[in-house]
Amino acid sequence: MHAVTIREPGGPEALAWTEVPDPEPGPGEVLLDVVATAVNRADLLQRQGRYDPPPGASPYPGLECSGRIAALGPDVTGWEIGDEVVALLAGGGYAERVAVPAGQVMRRPQGISLRDAGGLAEVACTVWSNVFLLANLRPEELLLVHGGASGIGTTAIQLAKAVGARVAVTAGTKDKLERCRELGADVLINYREDDFVEAVREAGGAAGGADVILDNMGAKYLGRNVDALATNGRLVIIGMQGGIKAELDIAKLLGKRAAVLATSLRARPVAEKAAIVAAVAEHVTPLVDSGAFRLVIDRVLPITDVADAHRVLEASEHVGKVLLEVSR
Amino acid sequence: MHAVTIREPGGPEALAWTEVPDPEPGPGEVLLDVVATAVNRADLLQRQGRYDPPPGASPYPGLECSGRIAALGPDVTGWEIGDEVVALLAGGGYAERVAVPAGQVMRRPQGISLRDAGGLAEVACTVWSNVFLLANLRPEELLLVHGGASGIGTTAIQLAKAVGARVAVTAGTKDKLERCRELGADVLINYREDDFVEAVREAGGAAGGADVILDNMGAKYLGRNVDALATNGRLVIIGMQGGIKAELDIAKLLGKRAAVLATSLRARPVAEKAAIVAAVAEHVTPLVDSGAFRLVIDRVLPITDVADAHRVLEASEHVGKVLLEVSR
Repeated sequence: MHAVTIREPGGPEALAWTEVPDPEPGPGEVLLDVVATAVNRADLLQRQGRYDPPPGASPYPGLECSGRIAALGPDVTGWEIGDEVVALLAGGGYAERVAVPAGQVMRRPQGISLRDAGGLAEVACTVWSNVFLLANLRPEELLLVHGGASGIGTTAIQLAKAVGARVAVTAGTKDKLERCRELGADVLINYREDDFVEAVREAGGAAGGADVILDNMGAKYLGRNVDALATNGRLVIIGMQGGIKAELDIAKLLGKRAAVLATSLRARPVAEKAAIVAAVAEHVTPLVDSGAFRLVIDRVLPITDVADAHRVLEASEHVGKVLLEVSR
Repeated sequence: MHAVTIREPGGPEALAWTEVPDPEPGPGEVLLDVVATAVNRADLLQRQGRYDPPPGASPYPGLECSGRIAALGPDVTGWEIGDEVVALLAGGGYAERVAVPAGQVMRRPQGISLRDAGGLAEVACTVWSNVFLLANLRPEELLLVHGGASGIGTTAIQLAKAVGARVAVTAGTKDKLERCRELGADVLINYREDDFVEAVREAGGAAGGADVILDNMGAKYLGRNVDALATNGRLVIIGMQGGIKAELDIAKLLGKRAAVLATSLRARPVAEKAAIVAAVAEHVTPLVDSGAFRLVIDRVLPITDVADAHRVLEASEHVGKVLLEVSR
């Protein structure tokens, strides 16, 4: 088969569509014919040599895909050859075939094409596990999403609105904020012009700020995120684009009885990933089928144009997911 | 009635047993004849003028008491004059009488005398709400308690053991550690001699550290507490004896998928306190009655010796609670 390999750590030009050995499904795994995968920020870090795959994972990039089941490893039940599925991967999605634990696979929702579903797993699993399972966002609460126009952001807006929460977002351009508004965001904050702490405090009303914050900036925003939290607020950090170390004001956190949570999806054990995928199948699939949640797709490129796809994410010009389609 | 007043912010000598007006129970409140109260570290801060009572609370110190119901305010059901109870207070326990929302009162457990129960509410509510309701300590998990010989510490050891968890403690003397061992602590760490991070990592086994840390030091221990956390660990900060601001390494926190939670009990709304007291009545009272949990009492002083009682806590020579008995 072919897969995207990394010639040596570096820029997008380091990526090459290369002939490699086919993967074999191990016990409890299924083998997928990949139809589409998608670009995540972690892929950029992996390409640069700054984010190695976890032990045992495929060396090729790609944290998600859609496809058809091509073979079943030993001890797999409940799936048949040809089933159309969506998979959460520890790596290897940038390829014609990938092996994945059966628990990390879910049926393609009816409300999305198999190709488009190639960008569904990471955003759905990340948002559901962090905003709902971990931070327990409740109806009427205020969610602040940094990077509202990203794949994660456009997903978080819609899922939060679907459960009856209010949503504030930050983004860097008017156009991106307008897209967020169309998706249901209630409070639009241009981080180049406005102070998000002040905006969220005003929007927070009696609770005094954001009940949940989904953050990808890390250190750069830590102090201001704590300032923006409501009483009993939960700050969930899933990225460190703004650095890794910052001063924490414990007195402020204690005064708000608030929490700072930091997580990642990729390094979790298979059992935890399976639980998250099962929760997504239960809670997000019906929202895709009903149209309450529509995956926002910026563009679809052939996987042979993977370097261009990485450039799009690096320039942060996109709104929603950048997909890579695998042709045969 | 009499109550302990603070002449002016300062040392223990600022405390005076003074004649003051009787409190009146408002709607939903009960009036208690106080039998005993206890000294908490927050009382020392309040005496020094560094921790004002929350709005609407009694100006006198005292966050807990035992006593008998002397009168019912409007709209109180389920209680009768003469009932022997334990109460979680926002203040005013250092007095002959105190008014308290009925939801913050629970029946005295059979396994403890009414006098000794004067030191039960704060430790039971603090440990139950933080270690169990918030951090969700589970059987087999490892709890690290800083200040294992304190009222909070001696309570946390016993309640954690009662649910089948393992417990590591820090303390500053051999004698205190020996008392912790008698109460069930599995890992004893003299913080003057040993590195608690290393000790906890060794004890943590496969999980790599403490699953839950109950911390009263704040800034001074933040970095090392994060180092001592296991994967999926929860650091709960309930005191800031070691300062309020410190650097947080978000990459470490994210790598462990861990959480930093900071809380206090006193400032919570009445409804939240009532929920905590109800949980304590449900889960801790049976452990008191069965003898699985025995409140550790360092000494009992007459409330007129309140200045001496504060000196005991300031010297950190005590093991367990320092009680103040009110005589009539």
